[in-house]
Amino acid sequence: MTGRPDEKILLAHGGGGRLTQKLIENNILPKFKNDILAQLGDSANLDLPSGRICFTTDSYVVKPLFFNGGDIGKLAVCGTINDLAVAGAKPVALSLSVIIEEGLEFKTLEKILSSVARAAEKNNVPIVTGDTKVVEKGAADKIFINTAGVGIRIAKKDMSFEGIDIGDQIIINGSIADHGMTILSQREGIKFQSKLKSDCAALAGLISQVLEKVNGVKFMRDPTRGGLAATLNEIANKSDKSIEIVEKDIPVKAAVRAAADMLGFDVLDIANEGKFVAVVSPDCVQDCLKICRQHLLGKQARLIGRVTEANLAPLVELITEIGGRRIVQMPYGRELPRIC
Amino acid sequence: MTGRPDEKILLAHGGGGRLTQKLIENNILPKFKNDILAQLGDSANLDLPSGRICFTTDSYVVKPLFFNGGDIGKLAVCGTINDLAVAGAKPVALSLSVIIEEGLEFKTLEKILSSVARAAEKNNVPIVTGDTKVVEKGAADKIFINTAGVGIRIAKKDMSFEGIDIGDQIIINGSIADHGMTILSQREGIKFQSKLKSDCAALAGLISQVLEKVNGVKFMRDPTRGGLAATLNEIANKSDKSIEIVEKDIPVKAAVRAAADMLGFDVLDIANEGKFVAVVSPDCVQDCLKICRQHLLGKQARLIGRVTEANLAPLVELITEIGGRRIVQMPYGRELPRIC
Repeated sequence: MTGRPDEKILLAHGGGGRLTQKLIENNILPKFKNDILAQLGDSANLDLPSGRICFTTDSYVVKPLFFNGGDIGKLAVCGTINDLAVAGAKPVALSLSVIIEEGLEFKTLEKILSSVARAAEKNNVPIVTGDTKVVEKGAADKIFINTAGVGIRIAKKDMSFEGIDIGDQIIINGSIADHGMTILSQREGIKFQSKLKSDCAALAGLISQVLEKVNGVKFMRDPTRGGLAATLNEIANKSDKSIEIVEKDIPVKAAVRAAADMLGFDVLDIANEGKFVAVVSPDCVQDCLKICRQHLLGKQARLIGRVTEANLAPLVELITEIGGRRIVQMPYGRELPRIC
Repeated sequence: MTGRPDEKILLAHGGGGRLTQKLIENNILPKFKNDILAQLGDSANLDLPSGRICFTTDSYVVKPLFFNGGDIGKLAVCGTINDLAVAGAKPVALSLSVIIEEGLEFKTLEKILSSVARAAEKNNVPIVTGDTKVVEKGAADKIFINTAGVGIRIAKKDMSFEGIDIGDQIIINGSIADHGMTILSQREGIKFQSKLKSDCAALAGLISQVLEKVNGVKFMRDPTRGGLAATLNEIANKSDKSIEIVEKDIPVKAAVRAAADMLGFDVLDIANEGKFVAVVSPDCVQDCLKICRQHLLGKQARLIGRVTEANLAPLVELITEIGGRRIVQMPYGRELPRIC
């Protein structure tokens, strides 16, 4: 079994025997060369300094597997790195677990694993442990990937909902809804899909710059599934404060807006994969924006809103382009199957 | 959405919006109450002592979901705990990521999550972070679970293939093939399946006793997929030594042997989920067996073989009941889809 491009994954590749061993040795290990993984233990050994570590997990089921701006492999690395980064941690190691449908072409698997390897290498976060399962044809849809991640806390202060105060400002590092509208448009086959590109990117570098140089970052989160609407509603509810955002200040690309209008979506509900929302104290806003804008992934960073007092209940309100106000609700979830 | 037993999982439960939030708050969080998870951050914060940590991951796709002796939930906790334990680590935290097929009954999900919670609690290893995805009907088979785990090294010495010497002894903590034959028999619907019971169990308690009290443990591994044959072949190949095991000394339950004979399997190739193989120096064998036998999960512990010099190539050989010798090959993998 040499993994020729015309070959397909067999059930026996997941049986834990000779074919599993060959799959791992021929197709997986060469892509992720590092000393820890090479030991092929059931667990990876990591030498970490004492103190606080962060630990996170995400499964990726995005459909289609390949999209403009990325694929399930890149997404699985970037998404988990981002979950660590917004928690104030420097990612130090990832695990990689794949569930493969029998019959998947080796060339598809190769392409995805190469993408995982490139993203891991680019972000200097090794894949240190993994697992491979194969299920029979029809029992999964091509491939699902889980990555878990371990990081070391770098934030000087704890970031939590409790630290959020009235008057704090809301910053985002760029345009919204790029990832979700790329996936949805590609799925629907709409014509201008070529203009859309996922923002899929790892934010650990940018966020470490921000956390190192700006003291007043109270909270960060990446607005993935459920988009900006879900993230801001969560922040409002958990901090028991309201949030006001200004529509004209929220960056949205023209093609993204057009696709959302055409397909009947609100860009606020749509997933991002290379964005963070930061709640910062008012005196730090300009520093934070400046640092963001010096980084490739923060060039379009904007102040988009602020934290206000909750009256009867915490609400997220949008000040519309024409100066009206509308409540931004937690999306129901209907619109976003398999977006990540 | 109260999660009444007659309700089913909808795609929107995975959309990252209101229904995802309700699923997490009503059906998941109450089962895993702990301070870290309750923060619902994108990552969990763990305070660990300095030094070496272990990190592992496994995805579970076992079919059927429920089997005599366990279910996919219990298996997902025990399996990952065991991967940490055999690496010489005390498990301290698990992540839990589920991929659910649209239409799964809430009562099935509840049963599985309760089982995850029970196993985690029993072993004193909290679920600290998680993820929930839903895919459309037909894109997955009911539910797949990934658990990743973090542990702290307790083994005084590194355990590695390099430490294995000629003359070292091979110990197992009980009977083989119980898990795999239970699953296979249940799938085939053979009549005496009621006599079979998976050995699914978490070994961290037993292994920590062994590592604390026995100095000469060179290496440990849990013989899951591929069974004892795969584990011993791996040890032989990586240590570049041969291994000789004695058939009459390997504990196999009568019902397991009968099922394997009937279905045409070699018990050596069949998965275990509550067993470890330990390579120990000869002077420690009796201590190791004694400590195992004082523990519920080690009552049937046996010395089953020894490490010998590799002649032309490292081999695993079985001394049969009638005194013959046969080579135990790395299984091909065909016989074991979705065993764990």
